Amino acid sequence: METMGRHVIAELWQCDFDKLNDMDFIEQTFVDAALKSGAEVREVAFHKFAPQGVSGVVIISESHLTIHSFPEHGYASVDVYTCGDLDPTVAAKYIAEALGSTSSELVEIPRGMGPVSVGKSKVSVTA
Amino acid sequence: METMGRHVIAELWQCDFDKLNDMDFIEQTFVDAALKSGAEVREVAFHKFAPQGVSGVVIISESHLTIHSFPEHGYASVDVYTCGDLDPTVAAKYIAEALGSTSSELVEIPRGMGPVSVGKSKVSVTA
Repeated sequence: METMGRHVIAELWQCDFDKLNDMDFIEQTFVDAALKSGAEVREVAFHKFAPQGVSGVVIISESHLTIHSFPEHGYASVDVYTCGDLDPTVAAKYIAEALGSTSSELVEIPRGMGPVSVGKSKVSVTA
Repeated sequence: METMGRHVIAELWQCDFDKLNDMDFIEQTFVDAALKSGAEVREVAFHKFAPQGVSGVVIISESHLTIHSFPEHGYASVDVYTCGDLDPTVAAKYIAEALGSTSSELVEIPRGMGPVSVGKSKVSVTA
């Protein structure tokens, strides 16, 4: 298997409070996002914090998707990392929309290719 | 809880083949790395691929640690993301050493602070 991968760091702001605090919704959203991007789901682990916030991961055959949500700040920190032919922006954009984010930044980082660089691959999206 | 976090992307090359292919060893290494950095472990999920390779995550109260290993290339793609006062480089360096990596690159990315940047925080380590 090739080491080459695409890692999208998604900073999602101004998300919906209730969605950021709903672990079942987030878990389903992440599984759906993985499947929509053509990934094969291997492991799913989510955790609900008190009084609020959700952390979780979907491990896919092609790497992973993670989230840490901060409902009180309307913020979700999301990573979508894929190997092979998959496009991680598909899942990242699906998640941003599902969480109701109206201000987001997506930055793509190549992995497994030698020196890390984020130069030209930066993509900003503000809806 | 503050949104501010530190995310270290660790590209670990020239690792030990057998260690990269030993799921139990990697899982224990990651839990130990989390604890050594002062984190609180919440969820642990690892997956062994055929014929080789391991993917996994440790979700901590302060975010997460992930790995995707490619034993045939001596490569491990590792992320250590922490919130609060923890230093993610502690765990990243512990993991690099445990996997026998002799050529590694650590890049730190601030999260939850507004625009993403990796400028001055880049740290390269080659042992």
